[in-house]
Amino acid sequence: MSRYALTIEYDGRSFMGWQHQDHGPSVQQTIEQAIKGITGQDIRVFAAGRTDAGVHALAMRAHFDLETHLSAFRLMEGFNAKLRPHPVAILACEEVDEEWHARFSCIGRRYVYKITNRRAPLALDIGQSWQVAQELDSDIMHKAAQHLVGEHDFTTFRSVNCQAQSPVKTLDSISVTRFGEEIEVEVAARSFLHHQVRSMVGSLKLVGTGKWNGQDLKNALVAKNRNALGLNAPPDGLFFVEAIYPKSEIE
Amino acid sequence: MSRYALTIEYDGRSFMGWQHQDHGPSVQQTIEQAIKGITGQDIRVFAAGRTDAGVHALAMRAHFDLETHLSAFRLMEGFNAKLRPHPVAILACEEVDEEWHARFSCIGRRYVYKITNRRAPLALDIGQSWQVAQELDSDIMHKAAQHLVGEHDFTTFRSVNCQAQSPVKTLDSISVTRFGEEIEVEVAARSFLHHQVRSMVGSLKLVGTGKWNGQDLKNALVAKNRNALGLNAPPDGLFFVEAIYPKSEIE
Repeated sequence: MSRYALTIEYDGRSFMGWQHQDHGPSVQQTIEQAIKGITGQDIRVFAAGRTDAGVHALAMRAHFDLETHLSAFRLMEGFNAKLRPHPVAILACEEVDEEWHARFSCIGRRYVYKITNRRAPLALDIGQSWQVAQELDSDIMHKAAQHLVGEHDFTTFRSVNCQAQSPVKTLDSISVTRFGEEIEVEVAARSFLHHQVRSMVGSLKLVGTGKWNGQDLKNALVAKNRNALGLNAPPDGLFFVEAIYPKSEIE
Repeated sequence: MSRYALTIEYDGRSFMGWQHQDHGPSVQQTIEQAIKGITGQDIRVFAAGRTDAGVHALAMRAHFDLETHLSAFRLMEGFNAKLRPHPVAILACEEVDEEWHARFSCIGRRYVYKITNRRAPLALDIGQSWQVAQELDSDIMHKAAQHLVGEHDFTTFRSVNCQAQSPVKTLDSISVTRFGEEIEVEVAARSFLHHQVRSMVGSLKLVGTGKWNGQDLKNALVAKNRNALGLNAPPDGLFFVEAIYPKSEIE
């Protein structure tokens, strides 16, 4: 048996999310169909994170097993040929140890959330950024966001459909940075709850406009109650940017 | 009479180009329809540059006249409401002097051409970058590109459909810069010939892969012959980024 790790870029607008869904196409299904096109076999693919409908990836990681050995380079070329015209690209394919698991070996995940802070709607970044018309103070957002760092019960920032066993997660870092009219919120944690990033960003938007202050954000966190949530940001601006693995296991 | 200047962002994929075309939608027509929706009148819009089908703008400048006076802010809001769902956004609208002309007052134009230099196809930037699989040496491209700077007969880099009276243009600057897998070619001139930027970038790609050297590029220029052109780059990666006006006329 040979195990292969993939690095995948995709535009989430075309999909109901990473995971198989009854009601529409998923990235997982699209990649599994490509494998079937190459090998003729039904093979399951496992990813580092299960992104929602409309959420993008710059570098999702995933793995799958083949009974026969194929060159990783040819496999990548085959994928990219079979995946056309879907907005999914295999950036890298490498053979890995059978112990390596895209989800369970992953020790860190990074997301970036992009906001375009301007009055005018989006023309070039439609579906790939959240346009917010009210002026946002990114410095105040950054400062307030630090209340979220560390181990907390993130029930407030968790979808009612979240399947995680515990609402307790450790947020390693969060930063809010402005580049002209673009604001990027970057977050890192071992793992996230369902809608956690979008819920944190939505609440930070309220802080940025002055509707909330830092204490309001902290109060929402300690409330441990979904009803205390300010706002859930749309999926458009969310990008899965990195899955981190112990260095010894892959490189 | 009141004259208004617009700053416009658009995704060129949805249009046959800036200018009115019999065979498909244009940005000009789309904006003129929006004005008609606001004022009920047929009013002509003039732009700083006439971009081709598939070419984008981050900040195209244009102007139009109204017989009655409307607030520039309300006009901008009206535009952005009427333009939906077309990928055209009015970033700014300001009242200007009647002497100010988007095309004839413009003393400089800047374009950026984006190349994604990787083996994998595009998923997130489809239609907004040129994916080149062969490795490109951006330093060699930058150095060779300097042969194009200055006043030259650019016949080699000019579409056979170009309507300019003279093929002689002055290229003020051209730079080729790599940011990871992205390469940006930035060009500035008072004005450009039809297909000039795409033709220069296509030829620079041949330099980047080593198929051409700097002297080959110079030979192509001095040949003053369209048949000496290496390659015309696709419209996907081309963005109109700035129109420059004398400071006294607008600000």
